[in-house]
Amino acid sequence: MAAIKLHGNMISTATTRVLATLYEKDLEAEFVNVDMKAGEHKKEHFLSKNPFGQVPAFEDGDMTLFESRAITRYICHEYADKGTPLLPPGDSKKKSTISVWMEVEAHQFDPPATLLTWELAIKRLFGLNTDTKVVEENEAKLAKVLDVYETRLAKSKYLGWDCFTLADLHHLPNIEYLMGTRIKEHFDSRPNVSAWVADIRTRPSWLKVLAAHKQ
Amino acid sequence: MAAIKLHGNMISTATTRVLATLYEKDLEAEFVNVDMKAGEHKKEHFLSKNPFGQVPAFEDGDMTLFESRAITRYICHEYADKGTPLLPPGDSKKKSTISVWMEVEAHQFDPPATLLTWELAIKRLFGLNTDTKVVEENEAKLAKVLDVYETRLAKSKYLGWDCFTLADLHHLPNIEYLMGTRIKEHFDSRPNVSAWVADIRTRPSWLKVLAAHKQ
Ligand SMILES: N[C@@H](CCC(=O)N[C@@H](CS)C(=O)NCC(=O)O)C(=O)O
Ligand SMILES: N[C@@H](CCC(=O)N[C@@H](CS)C(=O)NCC(=O)O)C(=O)O
Repeated sequence: MAAIKLHGNMISTATTRVLATLYEKDLEAEFVNVDMKAGEHKKEHFLSKNPFGQVPAFEDGDMTLFESRAITRYICHEYADKGTPLLPPGDSKKKSTISVWMEVEAHQFDPPATLLTWELAIKRLFGLNTDTKVVEENEAKLAKVLDVYETRLAKSKYLGWDCFTLADLHHLPNIEYLMGTRIKEHFDSRPNVSAWVADIRTRPSWLKVLAAHKQ
Repeated sequence: MAAIKLHGNMISTATTRVLATLYEKDLEAEFVNVDMKAGEHKKEHFLSKNPFGQVPAFEDGDMTLFESRAITRYICHEYADKGTPLLPPGDSKKKSTISVWMEVEAHQFDPPATLLTWELAIKRLFGLNTDTKVVEENEAKLAKVLDVYETRLAKSKYLGWDCFTLADLHHLPNIEYLMGTRIKEHFDSRPNVSAWVADIRTRPSWLKVLAAHKQ
């Protein structure tokens, strides 16, 4: 039995964010499927791992964590010497610049991207109606964020630094969903963003996540 | 001239989050007021410091940072030996637990709290109408978050660990605004949350922020 357990669901962006990190770090983990249709994430057994009743939850030995970005940070610090150094060592300028772009993902990109993923991808999977007002508002917000990314990526191959880091990886789950919707054009029409998306979506770790999803 | 410059506006929660951190760390800084009414934050001069056109922006020597939580992390790492250890050293369990609760602030507390601050406090300052639907939805969301906090604070004096850390501090700006609205009752009705709020709101650093705001 693996010491690391990831409790989640492959449909969940927060779950695949952690799974991609585990693959980048070449770590063995047991995937424990949480049956969200059956409401397992709101039952006592799961709430003891994440009191907010959301996937994922994560265990490593006797430690239990939740919140996908706290889990990915933990993995990078705890297993610094394994796989890709997603939080590469360096001086305070390097560290803080990566940290700025991780915050940008969390506070500028994720809010509109998550709502668009929900409205245009997940709701359709469940046959629910899309709220066009929410889509319009968040499409405009996302476009402005991508304008900033386009400028940033003209100067830096990756968002946080000149190598692939958590600042890039955290975007992958929402980008994957959005590339299957008409929001794709906002990525495609910006050459630097488009090259960045093509690069990060074809990383072996991410292809492994997609393959696991299809199973 | 101080090496550290904080560009912001005292009305902004993201600005006072950074200011409180500087005070906790006993650091000297120059405060550069950004006249948001005059739209200074959308002008080239400011956009070169924060491409998203939002306050705050931060300079330390030749380094420029934005996103309040990336700035507070930087301050804590760069000035680890000064003032309060807001990211105290420790083993990976301690570090990752604090990190979980910092993510909880960012992803569970901040979204409803910021919308409620906007609707019930800031909009009123500017004589704008409150959107009651937004208030209702986010009041319900915040109440659920505070239920989790009530349980957490029964086991731990502070959210992240047994001492005051960034995980607590990051909440202060929104809490301060909300305590001046009817949302206050959600904090008051939960004994552990209420004691925590009373404790963190009266820290000398925060009282200094409030005094600076009044000037
Ligand atoms: N900020 C959290 C978000 C977790 C989250 O929203 N999980 C979703 C699936 S992606 C979920 O469990 N939703 C069910 C619910 O909120 O009840 C994280 O990054 O882990
Ligand atoms: N996630 C950012 C949020 C910054 C933010 O929203 N700043 C507000 C004031 S608190 C602002 O500048 N609003 C003006 C605008 O967005 O145009 C941070 O934490 O620094």
